[in-house]
Amino acid sequence: MEYKKLDTEDINYIERLIGDQERILYGTEINEEYSHDELSDTASYPDLVVKVTSTEEVSAIMKYAYEKNIPVTPRGAGTGLVGASVAIEHGIMLDTSLMNHFLELDEDNLTLTVEPGVLLMELAAYVEERGFFYPPDPGEKSATIGGNISTNAGGMRAVKYGVTRDYVRGLEVVLPDGRVVEFGGKIVKNSTGYALKDLIIGSEGTLGIITKATLKILPLPKKAISLLIPFPTLQKAIGTVPLIIKSRAIPTAIEFMQREVIIDAEKYLGKKFPDSRADAYLLLKFDGNSTEEIEKDYECVARICLEQGAVDILISDTNEREESIWKARGAFLEAIKGSTTYMDEVDVVVPRSSVNEMVEYIHDLYKEVNVRIKSFGHAGDGNLHAYILKDDLSEQEWEEKMKAAMDRIYGKARELKGQVSGEHGIGYAKKSYLMESLDPAAVEIMKGIKQAFDPKNILNPHKVCQL
Amino acid sequence: MEYKKLDTEDINYIERLIGDQERILYGTEINEEYSHDELSDTASYPDLVVKVTSTEEVSAIMKYAYEKNIPVTPRGAGTGLVGASVAIEHGIMLDTSLMNHFLELDEDNLTLTVEPGVLLMELAAYVEERGFFYPPDPGEKSATIGGNISTNAGGMRAVKYGVTRDYVRGLEVVLPDGRVVEFGGKIVKNSTGYALKDLIIGSEGTLGIITKATLKILPLPKKAISLLIPFPTLQKAIGTVPLIIKSRAIPTAIEFMQREVIIDAEKYLGKKFPDSRADAYLLLKFDGNSTEEIEKDYECVARICLEQGAVDILISDTNEREESIWKARGAFLEAIKGSTTYMDEVDVVVPRSSVNEMVEYIHDLYKEVNVRIKSFGHAGDGNLHAYILKDDLSEQEWEEKMKAAMDRIYGKARELKGQVSGEHGIGYAKKSYLMESLDPAAVEIMKGIKQAFDPKNILNPHKVCQL
Repeated sequence: MEYKKLDTEDINYIERLIGDQERILYGTEINEEYSHDELSDTASYPDLVVKVTSTEEVSAIMKYAYEKNIPVTPRGAGTGLVGASVAIEHGIMLDTSLMNHFLELDEDNLTLTVEPGVLLMELAAYVEERGFFYPPDPGEKSATIGGNISTNAGGMRAVKYGVTRDYVRGLEVVLPDGRVVEFGGKIVKNSTGYALKDLIIGSEGTLGIITKATLKILPLPKKAISLLIPFPTLQKAIGTVPLIIKSRAIPTAIEFMQREVIIDAEKYLGKKFPDSRADAYLLLKFDGNSTEEIEKDYECVARICLEQGAVDILISDTNEREESIWKARGAFLEAIKGSTTYMDEVDVVVPRSSVNEMVEYIHDLYKEVNVRIKSFGHAGDGNLHAYILKDDLSEQEWEEKMKAAMDRIYGKARELKGQVSGEHGIGYAKKSYLMESLDPAAVEIMKGIKQAFDPKNILNPHKVCQL
Repeated sequence: MEYKKLDTEDINYIERLIGDQERILYGTEINEEYSHDELSDTASYPDLVVKVTSTEEVSAIMKYAYEKNIPVTPRGAGTGLVGASVAIEHGIMLDTSLMNHFLELDEDNLTLTVEPGVLLMELAAYVEERGFFYPPDPGEKSATIGGNISTNAGGMRAVKYGVTRDYVRGLEVVLPDGRVVEFGGKIVKNSTGYALKDLIIGSEGTLGIITKATLKILPLPKKAISLLIPFPTLQKAIGTVPLIIKSRAIPTAIEFMQREVIIDAEKYLGKKFPDSRADAYLLLKFDGNSTEEIEKDYECVARICLEQGAVDILISDTNEREESIWKARGAFLEAIKGSTTYMDEVDVVVPRSSVNEMVEYIHDLYKEVNVRIKSFGHAGDGNLHAYILKDDLSEQEWEEKMKAAMDRIYGKARELKGQVSGEHGIGYAKKSYLMESLDPAAVEIMKGIKQAFDPKNILNPHKVCQL
């Protein structure tokens, strides 16, 4: 596909359209940040960045870009890990971070309508102050909700509450040709034609640009408690998870972590973690409306853990302690990043019953590939985050070892009937693994869907299923 | 599109393929039942019915049909209400009702894998006997799970638990060209490319044929209780629902019903309903793991109802009483059907806060259109079922009045930001209302999606978005 290269006429047109020079960046005004996301080594500058403030602006720019055949890349907070928001073909970048308004809290329908640039941490605080609860809880709190929807982010509470998809009732979307459409609404049920709303969710900005989202919220559970449970080995920790699931207790979250990652987090935050004696930990959360209700559940789970060889059960029932534990958990990615020169990540998801096999495989991989790998993740939902560390490897060694490690990890995930990504998406960096893992028929259909939404392929080209 | 008319050669080929004459029907062997579904006056005979028993059979037939350009219509139990399983272009009908096996209950992953022909009532009984719970609970228990997935059926527990979509983890699907693909799996999270699994859900057998489904199940709640609450007027009953939602209690179900429909059900079942003094009722269900847990919730709700003018609160906490109430609720459709000569239905969904306005509008419509209309539905999730009754109207009067009533109801739903179908789907009968209600851009995209899955348009033609 030949795209039009942005020229002065285009820039002038967009300047007139936006009418606010402050919100348009080009040339050397474009900060290096705009050339990449949080992790991927995918890097490419847009020709022009527009900090959009309304659906109308997004629509007008898309109309123009569609007509002129100019590629457009949407971007939220840039916290992605797979290069989905990188302007591979340059062109226009639409930065949605100024579209960060809360539009409506509807207590009758239990919905919250927001613009896409609202940050997850702002959203959580907003609803909790008002006695409500937005369950999806990805580690990266400074991501935008638009980005969370675009990757169908899962987060830590997926065990009990599900993922972002389960909390999106309606979307306003600007299509590649600039038309504005609404999919879904405030309605609870919908069987009105194909599931276009669900297709936009997780499509990583390739099918349309989300300009408004109506989210399902819940009443805030009145009580929450966490258990930090040290185990002598990682294997024993993770081996306990299927027994917890089988016990029919329903924890909100089941995370696993290892001492080395905890120590990274302590260094990164400059704060002690409540415990770091053991090699491995499970961190569980329970919530509900009364202490008795959650006590019954967690007592049963604590007993199971002790039977399986847990060293101790640390109950966290104060806000301070809760915060210190979950803050450390939330800092793992940054902490690991700080412990090496460079890294890349895998975000595989496997059936819960195969987490132990997958984790052990990753753990032993350094023997075969001779590269440091650290991992943590969502033991309760099968989604593992593993980080392959460059340390002081040469570029060439790094490329070789990183690829060897990735190939093996994705291969193992396939063998266990898992998938390439649990929540980070495919973006640019994971395309080859998507192609390998999916049935060619599925890839063909995905390409056909892209064609149906974006026949000129101007929106976020080269992402997900587009070579 | 010109289809090939089935000839002797085709029939011989399929006979050899299946090798079991008993499972192939043609000509006069095809029972009248196969020409229509439960309600719609859409009627058309297939040329051939094959009672398939395996994915391989479905795949081989689709391969052949694709090559020869023969239309194929999948059918489960035929309990649909919008003509989605009617063979408009004749050709081959694939009856999946013999594919009714339970394949695997995986207690580690909390999943149940079934063939598509398993009936909802069989599925519910199977998991409950084993201490598990499949939350979606549509009124029609003799529908197949394949049909439920194909319409994204919602049912009565959507208030607390969501709809069918929320419980489908993985699907095996035969594509129109016969290729067999798997979308999703046992995994809890998935951000691996576009949401093809979610696209199949609710696509009414137009994009692929579901041959296997992996469902999410939950531990069975240990306690459940229902409240039957008589109100002096329907308006008062429904007006109470937003207050219940706002109170932050989370009922499993909130249904509304009127005396006239209860009396129909009493006649139909030959059994007295526990109460029929009042004009209108709310029926609520609460579930949880202890009596105390649900008592707190329902006591608060009972108080709200009494404050709003409820005449009484009938607590149903025995299995017998539970069954008698919910059995009556489940029989409403058949009971209304039995009270008239013919009827057609609407299945609109509006935001919960607009249920009262929608119900009142429907209730008063007879004044304008002069046709009897009965309704009941899911007050807690905004999904209303209204039935327009033919009684002794002439065909012409019926057509006119039915169309006038439908036009007005769908128009009102649009005004309230609702949608054409909450759970019954679009099928053949509701296509014109889909076209009217959706943005033309959305309809175009849907057609593009159909094209991506089924370029020759041989699978279930003339349904959903295909004229």
